[in-house]
Amino acid sequence: MRYKIIIEYDGTPFVGWQRQDNGLSVQECIETAIESLFQEKPTLFGAGRTDSGVHATGQVAHFDITTKELDTYSIKTGLNHYLKIYPISILDVTEVDAKFHSRFDATERKYLYRIINRTSPLSIEKGRAWLVMKDLNLEKMQACIPIIEGKHDFTTFRSVNCQSKSPIKTLNSCKITRQDDNIYFGFVAPSFLQHQIRSIVGTLKMVGEELWDVERFKEALEAKDRSKCGALAPADGLYFMEVSY
Amino acid sequence: MRYKIIIEYDGTPFVGWQRQDNGLSVQECIETAIESLFQEKPTLFGAGRTDSGVHATGQVAHFDITTKELDTYSIKTGLNHYLKIYPISILDVTEVDAKFHSRFDATERKYLYRIINRTSPLSIEKGRAWLVMKDLNLEKMQACIPIIEGKHDFTTFRSVNCQSKSPIKTLNSCKITRQDDNIYFGFVAPSFLQHQIRSIVGTLKMVGEELWDVERFKEALEAKDRSKCGALAPADGLYFMEVSY
Repeated sequence: MRYKIIIEYDGTPFVGWQRQDNGLSVQECIETAIESLFQEKPTLFGAGRTDSGVHATGQVAHFDITTKELDTYSIKTGLNHYLKIYPISILDVTEVDAKFHSRFDATERKYLYRIINRTSPLSIEKGRAWLVMKDLNLEKMQACIPIIEGKHDFTTFRSVNCQSKSPIKTLNSCKITRQDDNIYFGFVAPSFLQHQIRSIVGTLKMVGEELWDVERFKEALEAKDRSKCGALAPADGLYFMEVSY
Repeated sequence: MRYKIIIEYDGTPFVGWQRQDNGLSVQECIETAIESLFQEKPTLFGAGRTDSGVHATGQVAHFDITTKELDTYSIKTGLNHYLKIYPISILDVTEVDAKFHSRFDATERKYLYRIINRTSPLSIEKGRAWLVMKDLNLEKMQACIPIIEGKHDFTTFRSVNCQSKSPIKTLNSCKITRQDDNIYFGFVAPSFLQHQIRSIVGTLKMVGEELWDVERFKEALEAKDRSKCGALAPADGLYFMEVSY
């Protein structure tokens, strides 16, 4: 039986989604919980490999169970029971076709980046947003949207360690909105390169601070050169929101 | 010189606003920061005495400085520097008249209580909302609003340790709204009794769960009897939002 799960987590204490030797990952925590519940060692496939510190409100993953049968409600409450010491929450469990693949079948991924733009440090929202003290010009950042929407070579906005075969990606949409001190950057695409959103937001922030003009942002993308990226926004403000199939 | 400050804090690690012998308070942290900045021992007067675990996005306080003079921007950044190990942020500093009193001059206080109504545990919002798993009936909770708005004897919804002279308070307004899984309870009044909001929300939740009907909520208020209170909502979901003068 194959199960699809939707997962929310606070990325702060983890090395990221994926299992690594240097610390605790979200994947390892959930795999251990599945093993505790089913007495069967699973492999969990996630739709997106979030970095250390990146949060999720709608990560999707799947795993197979060959022995024990449990209804989806019992799986959800059982996994949440075994996960309770971690800031990981299983929001939903469904049975899916044995051909379903959380990563390869995903047609669209949605991310949100959150900046808090004010001159005072964060307290309640510490670790949950990027604090930018210099006043950001929303209109200038929004003027960059048409430059990055659509199909482009995103080499400039891609980690040197990115394992994607191609740097060419299609950004379906980018939206930038402000609500009081909060600036939200919404990104939708079939898939993203490693550090793509954090690189774009870090560079948009330089445009917002008026250290860069819109033209320079355009030139940076067109340069297809990682060294032309403005800055890498911290993981704290990034949320993996939703996966469509 | 008298200064008015606006303060945001995550209440989780504190024994509450007010100095106490049994642990660290927000007041003590800020008084220590003021002393570090001015080399003068201040007394800080807060507009509201939030309990342990209660958050603030707009607590107001004042203090006097007789020796050193600093501009308000330097006070704000200086205090935030000394407070940086704590989840406390000074949002604003202004010079005020020597007669201004943060507590006694307040004409209106605004609080927000936040419930997350879903069957999965909290992760990102842990400590920042009350998780209620049973589906809440918004309309039935809203039907209780006319019962508590206005001037009433709130003995039922008041801590037995409350030090207010009178249990009679005027609740200017109560608003209950839902946004996805979030249920927000907004309260505005000149002043509140100890545990008043948490007692009201805890009891409204029983109406929302349909364990109580609206009539019983009305009878509870009218009983003027603490033992008739439904439940006390946890501190995690309560935010002290704003003070008007």
